[in-house]
Amino acid sequence: MKKNALGILLAVFCLAMLAAAPESSSDHPQFTAKNELMAPADYRQWVFLSSGLGMSYSPQGADHPMFTNVFVPQWAYNEFLKSGKWPDHSMFVVEDRGSETKGSINHGGRFQTDRMGMAVEVKDEARFPDKWAYFGFNGDAQTSSAAPKQVCWQCHEDHAAVEHTFVQFYPTLKPVAQKFGTYKASREQVQ
Amino acid sequence: MKKNALGILLAVFCLAMLAAAPESSSDHPQFTAKNELMAPADYRQWVFLSSGLGMSYSPQGADHPMFTNVFVPQWAYNEFLKSGKWPDHSMFVVEDRGSETKGSINHGGRFQTDRMGMAVEVKDEARFPDKWAYFGFNGDAQTSSAAPKQVCWQCHEDHAAVEHTFVQFYPTLKPVAQKFGTYKASREQVQ
Repeated sequence: MKKNALGILLAVFCLAMLAAAPESSSDHPQFTAKNELMAPADYRQWVFLSSGLGMSYSPQGADHPMFTNVFVPQWAYNEFLKSGKWPDHSMFVVEDRGSETKGSINHGGRFQTDRMGMAVEVKDEARFPDKWAYFGFNGDAQTSSAAPKQVCWQCHEDHAAVEHTFVQFYPTLKPVAQKFGTYKASREQVQ
Repeated sequence: MKKNALGILLAVFCLAMLAAAPESSSDHPQFTAKNELMAPADYRQWVFLSSGLGMSYSPQGADHPMFTNVFVPQWAYNEFLKSGKWPDHSMFVVEDRGSETKGSINHGGRFQTDRMGMAVEVKDEARFPDKWAYFGFNGDAQTSSAAPKQVCWQCHEDHAAVEHTFVQFYPTLKPVAQKFGTYKASREQVQ
């Protein structure tokens, strides 16, 4: 690829200037004056970590299995690749979608349909005494208050394989965390 | 957000210079001298379209359901948002992953595990007389020759809702195609 040397010098200069601009993009957590998280707008263009179907954390089955798509912003993902650790202000979206089986040429299994809502996890060491906080958004809700500790935080604390994230379910991240020694293998044991 | 006006002018200049560089990134199709497609390297960082589980196009069931994750590069996705049409050189990756059910805190449903391979669809009006071509990559294969027409092409021609893409299974793209009148609703009928 041909590149003009002057162009490279100018690009470096531009990046240095832009790096000085404060964070305001929707891929960093944004809060209202009442400390509610604002729904991140473009999470579907973040890095996809994995999708599950009908995942249930208690023995009963699910009649209407939902797909759960997980995304993380590119900037946070890039940091994780270098260290196996999540930088401060990382956000994770778990998007819930309905599923159908009979449709068009599909005769078995399930494909995704309507968005039902999402949950967002935020790491913010200065804002939250417990470092991590969890926010549920039903339907098209645009703001959400942090959930009480026992609703989400405690299970993440007790069962997540990397800090508060369930990397045991993210097959592209697991080898990265293992390489850096940040993966708690005991968290894979059937609970 | 504070931005220096000089920085903006320089950024515009840099972008103009970089735009002149020829395509060589892995988010455009790359071919060997024998016209084999080279496996795109960073497709997991492309835009996620959807994931299905155990999708089967004939009535028999699947004992070992696979997840199928679909990705398209950001540049092609951006064009689709503006027109409901896919630009020339669009690529689509369908990644196949194994699934498990009993693991860690999960008691029901399924989560994703090992990558088994992928299929790649390419739109290239100059290179392919039939405009679209299909490439299978088992395991970690790095090159692949185009599949014969009856293996993939014909079904896409007969059943896809937008050009040769199954937008009936991509819930975030369907409303875009409907808005621009490029969505063939008849393709939703159960076959």
